[in-house]
Amino acid sequence: MFELLKTDPHSRARLGRLTTPRGVIDTPVFMPVGTQGSVKALDPRELLEMGTQIILGNTYHLHIRPGLDIINAAGGLHKFINWPHPILTDSGGFQVFSLAKIRKIKPHGVEFRSHLDGSLLFLGPKEAMEIQRALGSDIAMVFDDCPPHTSAPREMRAAVERTIRWAGECREQPRAAGQKVFGIVQGGSDPALREECAKQLVALDFDGYAIGGVSVGEPEPEMMKAVEFTEPFLPAGKARYAMGLGTPAQLVELVARGVDMFDCVLPTRVARNGTAFTTRGTVSIKAGFNKSDFRPIEEGCECFACRHFTRAYLRHLLNVGEILGLRMVSVHNSHMFLKVMADIRAALAAGTFAEFRREFVANYIPSRKILLAREESR
Amino acid sequence: MFELLKTDPHSRARLGRLTTPRGVIDTPVFMPVGTQGSVKALDPRELLEMGTQIILGNTYHLHIRPGLDIINAAGGLHKFINWPHPILTDSGGFQVFSLAKIRKIKPHGVEFRSHLDGSLLFLGPKEAMEIQRALGSDIAMVFDDCPPHTSAPREMRAAVERTIRWAGECREQPRAAGQKVFGIVQGGSDPALREECAKQLVALDFDGYAIGGVSVGEPEPEMMKAVEFTEPFLPAGKARYAMGLGTPAQLVELVARGVDMFDCVLPTRVARNGTAFTTRGTVSIKAGFNKSDFRPIEEGCECFACRHFTRAYLRHLLNVGEILGLRMVSVHNSHMFLKVMADIRAALAAGTFAEFRREFVANYIPSRKILLAREESR
Repeated sequence: MFELLKTDPHSRARLGRLTTPRGVIDTPVFMPVGTQGSVKALDPRELLEMGTQIILGNTYHLHIRPGLDIINAAGGLHKFINWPHPILTDSGGFQVFSLAKIRKIKPHGVEFRSHLDGSLLFLGPKEAMEIQRALGSDIAMVFDDCPPHTSAPREMRAAVERTIRWAGECREQPRAAGQKVFGIVQGGSDPALREECAKQLVALDFDGYAIGGVSVGEPEPEMMKAVEFTEPFLPAGKARYAMGLGTPAQLVELVARGVDMFDCVLPTRVARNGTAFTTRGTVSIKAGFNKSDFRPIEEGCECFACRHFTRAYLRHLLNVGEILGLRMVSVHNSHMFLKVMADIRAALAAGTFAEFRREFVANYIPSRKILLAREESR
Repeated sequence: MFELLKTDPHSRARLGRLTTPRGVIDTPVFMPVGTQGSVKALDPRELLEMGTQIILGNTYHLHIRPGLDIINAAGGLHKFINWPHPILTDSGGFQVFSLAKIRKIKPHGVEFRSHLDGSLLFLGPKEAMEIQRALGSDIAMVFDDCPPHTSAPREMRAAVERTIRWAGECREQPRAAGQKVFGIVQGGSDPALREECAKQLVALDFDGYAIGGVSVGEPEPEMMKAVEFTEPFLPAGKARYAMGLGTPAQLVELVARGVDMFDCVLPTRVARNGTAFTTRGTVSIKAGFNKSDFRPIEEGCECFACRHFTRAYLRHLLNVGEILGLRMVSVHNSHMFLKVMADIRAALAAGTFAEFRREFVANYIPSRKILLAREESR
């Protein structure tokens, strides 16, 4: 399923190829997030034009709305949303632990109340795999226990044990035709827990391995550690996926730490507030300094937004609440993330990843929050 | 500027061709409305794909935001919004009389407070033409007095007199290169006022004539009368434009009454509430009966939305608040209005407009409000 094409001699970065029932994916890859069956504000044509190879769907959300009966009747998620290309579905674990208000962990899953209408629901390894089988995703994720990064060591250990046990249960569930299943390593920033969780999951022999328990509010140095503590215990011949990450510069650094796959809501989420990603960091398109700036969001960018519209126009659209404004910043941001991954792949192929990484990270100005967290961890 | 290609022997319908600085427009034509410099939720590519020949811009809105300095710096409205095709701008008259909260009619225009921030503004013939010249629209509209349809006869007469005087002033203002200027006939549903206003404006010799004071809340029969009382006094060799109208069936009926040009916010406005236009009338895509309806909004429709998505999926998107939902209904509705006009033109060319009209109107189920108004006028 995963072919390792090349490894970088100066880092742990890898160039690879992932084969799924609906197509081959070049890695490292960024996967736009279609939580509710739509990558927010974008249509499938725009996604393909910007080089999207695979998108994400969310078991938790799709299970609640529209519900499996409708997706089943449509002939699966791909047909329902008209995306005939690869889809990865998460298991709902992350949402159960982050969104659901009241939850009760039981031996075979979690009883919780819907964040929408308070109705009582249950998700566990069996249910999560059953839903993902019905969705018909190309890659399914195991149902894991994803505790807050501030959890006490004892709770973190319990979550790891539960995650391993549930992963075993997921392993045994029926799957959709050709569907691959990835394990998820938990363990916070505790090296021993990460090692144990990784080893136990690898023993179960999944099609790929995700690093979970990141993108849960932890500062950047902890996030990097979580990856560094996990990656050495994952087999080179399987894809590695860091869940819910990150900023463009973080993606580059995570690739350098041996990660192949990423997903993140950042590009479309911040776009709706008028914030654009550039190779120099984020920029507020709504800001006054863009008033008469008739350049594109980023010069040289080949996205639909940058080929057609100026910052001044997009600023106007965002300021008067026109949907085209947030649409176009969503296009630009998603394209930007995908372009960074394409550039990474090209650099890995050319053997110039070390230079690319150095230059990219030097140019990219992180947020104040990230800079402060880096300071503190020194 | 306007070439009358063919007239229908059974009605007053006309097939024509309107030449503007940025292109030739086949009439009858529907003009999507880009109030603030964007046809709501759509991008220029989508507009072209659905056959848009000309769009509208609003002097009042664009004057307030982003303001003329920015549009000037961009090199005009076409460049600012990246629409190199024809644009018609209204004069702001309608907005001054409908949106602005406090207004004071003066000899040479209206002093009013911005509906946004209450700032004191002034628009009159001179200002409206100056702004439209700066916007660089292909067709500019005169600044008119557009009173409510419930106005007393005395007020209606005053508005007509003012409209005629202001039209004369507009006629004398400098224009952008090649810019055409249309007069606007007022007079409510008073035949004498309509006739007088039309004749006086025709004497001023404009490039085309609009019928204003419609789409101001009047019931359909009054709207039809306003057009019928005006049209006979407009020269056959100039284009006629009914402002702010209407539903698809009304467009067909208005074409039959000799109108060549239309604009309306209905297709995109109702789309944002999840209402779609079909040849059988409107349908709520959010409605429960679309839950598992895997057909397109309208079978046989060739719009981007109908070629790619089902009612069930669009219903889901609208119900969970995904932007793609309202985007796609906006695409469908705008396409539907443009398709009706294309069908009308084809029927006029083929000499089958009478059949087309009969069938279209028989199939199209109007809203309850329109049906009641028709009942009452009998």
